[in-house]
Amino acid sequence: MTLDVGVIGVGMIGQEHIRRLDGGPGGSRVVAVADADAQRAATVAGQLSAAKALASGDELIASDAVDAVVVTSWGPTHEPYVLACIAAGKPVFCEKPLATTQDACRRIVDAEVAAGRRGVQVGFNRRYDPAHRALKQAVDGGAIGAPLLVHCAHRNASVPGHYTRDMSIADTAIHEIDQLRWLLGQEIAAVQVHTPRKSSRGGELQDPLLVLFEMADGVLVDVEVSVNVHYGYEIRCEVSGETGTVELADTAPVRVRSAGVVAGLVPADWRERFTLSYDIELREWVDTVVAGRPTQGPSAWDGYAAQVVSDAALQSLHAGGRVSIELPPRPGLYAAPPAS
Amino acid sequence: MTLDVGVIGVGMIGQEHIRRLDGGPGGSRVVAVADADAQRAATVAGQLSAAKALASGDELIASDAVDAVVVTSWGPTHEPYVLACIAAGKPVFCEKPLATTQDACRRIVDAEVAAGRRGVQVGFNRRYDPAHRALKQAVDGGAIGAPLLVHCAHRNASVPGHYTRDMSIADTAIHEIDQLRWLLGQEIAAVQVHTPRKSSRGGELQDPLLVLFEMADGVLVDVEVSVNVHYGYEIRCEVSGETGTVELADTAPVRVRSAGVVAGLVPADWRERFTLSYDIELREWVDTVVAGRPTQGPSAWDGYAAQVVSDAALQSLHAGGRVSIELPPRPGLYAAPPAS
Amino acid sequence: MTLDVGVIGVGMIGQEHIRRLDGGPGGSRVVAVADADAQRAATVAGQLSAAKALASGDELIASDAVDAVVVTSWGPTHEPYVLACIAAGKPVFCEKPLATTQDACRRIVDAEVAAGRRGVQVGFNRRYDPAHRALKQAVDGGAIGAPLLVHCAHRNASVPGHYTRDMSIADTAIHEIDQLRWLLGQEIAAVQVHTPRKSSRGGELQDPLLVLFEMADGVLVDVEVSVNVHYGYEIRCEVSGETGTVELADTAPVRVRSAGVVAGLVPADWRERFTLSYDIELREWVDTVVAGRPTQGPSAWDGYAAQVVSDAALQSLHAGGRVSIELPPRPGLYAAPPAS
Amino acid sequence: MTLDVGVIGVGMIGQEHIRRLDGGPGGSRVVAVADADAQRAATVAGQLSAAKALASGDELIASDAVDAVVVTSWGPTHEPYVLACIAAGKPVFCEKPLATTQDACRRIVDAEVAAGRRGVQVGFNRRYDPAHRALKQAVDGGAIGAPLLVHCAHRNASVPGHYTRDMSIADTAIHEIDQLRWLLGQEIAAVQVHTPRKSSRGGELQDPLLVLFEMADGVLVDVEVSVNVHYGYEIRCEVSGETGTVELADTAPVRVRSAGVVAGLVPADWRERFTLSYDIELREWVDTVVAGRPTQGPSAWDGYAAQVVSDAALQSLHAGGRVSIELPPRPGLYAAPPAS
Repeated sequence: MTLDVGVIGVGMIGQEHIRRLDGGPGGSRVVAVADADAQRAATVAGQLSAAKALASGDELIASDAVDAVVVTSWGPTHEPYVLACIAAGKPVFCEKPLATTQDACRRIVDAEVAAGRRGVQVGFNRRYDPAHRALKQAVDGGAIGAPLLVHCAHRNASVPGHYTRDMSIADTAIHEIDQLRWLLGQEIAAVQVHTPRKSSRGGELQDPLLVLFEMADGVLVDVEVSVNVHYGYEIRCEVSGETGTVELADTAPVRVRSAGVVAGLVPADWRERFTLSYDIELREWVDTVVAGRPTQGPSAWDGYAAQVVSDAALQSLHAGGRVSIELPPRPGLYAAPPAS
Repeated sequence: MTLDVGVIGVGMIGQEHIRRLDGGPGGSRVVAVADADAQRAATVAGQLSAAKALASGDELIASDAVDAVVVTSWGPTHEPYVLACIAAGKPVFCEKPLATTQDACRRIVDAEVAAGRRGVQVGFNRRYDPAHRALKQAVDGGAIGAPLLVHCAHRNASVPGHYTRDMSIADTAIHEIDQLRWLLGQEIAAVQVHTPRKSSRGGELQDPLLVLFEMADGVLVDVEVSVNVHYGYEIRCEVSGETGTVELADTAPVRVRSAGVVAGLVPADWRERFTLSYDIELREWVDTVVAGRPTQGPSAWDGYAAQVVSDAALQSLHAGGRVSIELPPRPGLYAAPPAS
Repeated sequence: MTLDVGVIGVGMIGQEHIRRLDGGPGGSRVVAVADADAQRAATVAGQLSAAKALASGDELIASDAVDAVVVTSWGPTHEPYVLACIAAGKPVFCEKPLATTQDACRRIVDAEVAAGRRGVQVGFNRRYDPAHRALKQAVDGGAIGAPLLVHCAHRNASVPGHYTRDMSIADTAIHEIDQLRWLLGQEIAAVQVHTPRKSSRGGELQDPLLVLFEMADGVLVDVEVSVNVHYGYEIRCEVSGETGTVELADTAPVRVRSAGVVAGLVPADWRERFTLSYDIELREWVDTVVAGRPTQGPSAWDGYAAQVVSDAALQSLHAGGRVSIELPPRPGLYAAPPAS
Repeated sequence: MTLDVGVIGVGMIGQEHIRRLDGGPGGSRVVAVADADAQRAATVAGQLSAAKALASGDELIASDAVDAVVVTSWGPTHEPYVLACIAAGKPVFCEKPLATTQDACRRIVDAEVAAGRRGVQVGFNRRYDPAHRALKQAVDGGAIGAPLLVHCAHRNASVPGHYTRDMSIADTAIHEIDQLRWLLGQEIAAVQVHTPRKSSRGGELQDPLLVLFEMADGVLVDVEVSVNVHYGYEIRCEVSGETGTVELADTAPVRVRSAGVVAGLVPADWRERFTLSYDIELREWVDTVVAGRPTQGPSAWDGYAAQVVSDAALQSLHAGGRVSIELPPRPGLYAAPPAS
């Protein structure tokens, strides 16, 4: 069976997903696209063998030709599109953030709970990266004993001029927020953002940040968020447990000896580093939907919880100090601890 | 456009390829299968949404429903099937070996040259491994200067009971034979097989071997072939050039500290190590065929040349000494040096 | 010229130093020892070719036969012995801590300033570890741009039963306190100790700790202090700068492939990890003293500053919160920034 | 007790050894020097506190002031000096080669056997390198099962203009010859030298070489000898055994991330790489001599055996082909297998 997918929002990340979904692994194709820019929608549809450009996201969601929906439009539009998908009973894959406020995220959770079935998946791709999966497997398998501390670094070579201080949390550290909940199977109970000496490479931007997260069970996490490191793109993580540690290994496929050093290449950006994770993320989503199973990936609850933590971190960034986080009880629909 | 593929031979490797090709990346599906074991063909077809089990490989090749053919049947049947595909003007992906004798390989080359168009691709998957591609990119990009020496190791954790001494060359080292021709862009001019102290783990088997290859330009290569190393499956390669060296890096995605060591996992077998290379190999083959371009991967000439070198290595293994290799002139159809 | 050394305190670390100093590199020998346990002093002296056991540390310091003094006695005795050495005009190498209170350390600084010549060196051996020196060389040489963040881990396999919570700071993290001042050439301006989830392996002990240090120039440092990690002894440090990072590399001399992993040994304890640093530390001390130069290693000021920071960290550990640190002006005798 | 050492030949390596022995670890001092260049001997003696320049090596050996002798003079003089030390009953440490011909080496062996006590040690320093010792410990400890194959690389950044083809064997590969005998506890039974494509960086020099050694028990070893690799100095070795492998690890103390790579420094030359091995070599020699024990390091037999293998390798280099090696029976004085 082939899954017929409609894609709302065909900018860069939308087109990346279309490339993976049209004639994609497991049997999917893109049959409809919509975009605020109708011309762009038409152009993208024209490059596909079976896709029509529809006038709006709402029309796309309503279309009988569309089995499942991918939302990669502008953040503020996520909430209405996802709610419409829930109402229409169609599986929806929504890029992060699930919605731009925690209240909006909460409304999505409530609607899905009312519908009684998980159909929303949020695009936290890191859960699908083979190295991060091996990390979780080592932790869950007892290779290091109970986790006690985690050290992470999220480093970008550079960021565009419009990048703001708040984006260091809401767009960048949000990945660690979801990753930590998933990796450790715990909610985050408190957060504090520290502002070290500022890099001269980032202009006015407060860069880097050091973010401390306290997990519900007391595990303490420090995350370096650096977005102008110049040398490349790198994600690092080491979990210290009672009897050992596990860390992400170097990703360079070869080592070159020349000019006095032995060296491995560092990825230039997230696309290079995480290509495979996007492949797997969408393949597993298609497989799940085709099989008629409830989606298993990052849920609406995960999107909501990440937004709550992100807001708390922003509060700490703005006002200083440690911010406690209280989540409402997790609905039974999401009974399992955060897991992929 | 979707490529409709027929698969001849649905044993283990055949079923692996079917999994990748049916609803696969780039848009392919399996529409027909055939197998010497008709029951098995029927069973496999029954698990697919669009495939019929046909009575024979010849019928499959002749079928109008089949755009392109994958040959994963028993080695001795490769020659007639590939020749039939050439005659039918259909692209064919044939698992290694192209054929079981160099004469048979040569007949395939001659038929393809007579047909005037490259349509045969041989399943030397290592060219598609990202790490091997990075290795070649470093060499071709001048990172280490002109290559002078290469050191390789091909290690299997264990081999089945029916594995014979000759298979160390014809089934195992054949991968290095193709890889070296591709990596260095040179034919192999001579070979000598050395038999070191025998492992007690391999029973009667002469294991390991040390194979020396001399490339046409004088680059000297030593290959450790060990098929009972117990600790895991590993492929190693370092190229020493005039100003530096490049080597395959460790493949472990995480490093665990525990019990006195810091350790990374080694793959258990070739499936684990090379999964991604098979994905890419078949994706690129489908893309090329769908685009109507001549196939760019390992050619019939590559299959033939590898067989000639393999035969020479077997001669050295049986009789001792250094064996020179003379290839006939490369037909213009394969004018380019060995390349992916 | 041979340096004739007297050693006060001949317990484990004292005997280690004696082994290095008697007939040691650069030309030194141990001519006198003293210990609160007179019997132990006699036994140790009896094993040396040229040493006498003296009745007290004071007698040793006063002895004409002694050119320079090593103090490795019980912490509370450090202050009077070091003051006596200053009064006698004899160079003294004092194991950490310089003294057990910051007031006592301050009295030593004042006495040395009054004497007008640096003759006191404190046993912060990490400055002599070749890997830490390479780390500092990379930072100072501009390889990573201006430092912004540092991540450290100090891990012991286990600690003896009498080890207390305060020792995590005063005996263990004290090494990082000195190392950071030396590595970054900055005083520490504030400290906060966090207590994550407690390891079940440490009994009542609060283990691990996460200590945040703020350097005077805003560099932020997080230090994992874990003293029951079971897997081995390990010191880790990565400095993140404006254009790159530098970290301590693995120390294993060989890598073993076996049983599914590729692994390197982790040191069992600090003796194994830092043997070479002690060799170099004492060799350089002897060379400096023999040459009649003021001692260049960790100074009385360094011992004092470390004690002030350690006290602040203990205050944070006991009462919670961030503790600011105000040092008095650095006397001109120690004009240079912290350096080896 | 202090060991009073005389040093014959005070060129570069002689002065290096003097620096280590005068006031050196374990208690040694240099009391006499001699050199073909009397002026140089006087200058060097003048820089030491207790050394006299003597008129000749023979006078030095005969001097009652000299307990033990270090021979670092010109190779052709080694034989008479070592024989004189044996005759005088004085321990002698002789830099490699023991003598410049295998006959001369044999005469030394015969003289020492006649004397009935081991007093000659040859300067094969690699046995004292901690990484090589860890390699041997892994092999001997059974970590990889019985050894079957070894791969080595000996790479120099560059060589001086007077360096000749034969020196690739006699001065460079000689280190691997001794190392392999020691590491594997086996004599070398045959050797063949291969000449791959010549590096354009070495002028007329045939560089690199690939040398195959067959150990007496069938272990096969390939050694890359490259003396113009430009990128730095590096010694590599991997031993493949029945159940695993062990290899020398990278030596870089820190890893720097910058400009798109993560990199570790490679040593510039053998002095940088092997400093510690020389320290340990001489310390252990002094300790052994002071203790009055027969020397345990590389023996006269080891010097002789290495010379025989080196000569065989040169024969293969000049005339081509595999050269078998027959050693006479090992005298009982050297009954143990080659060991440190």
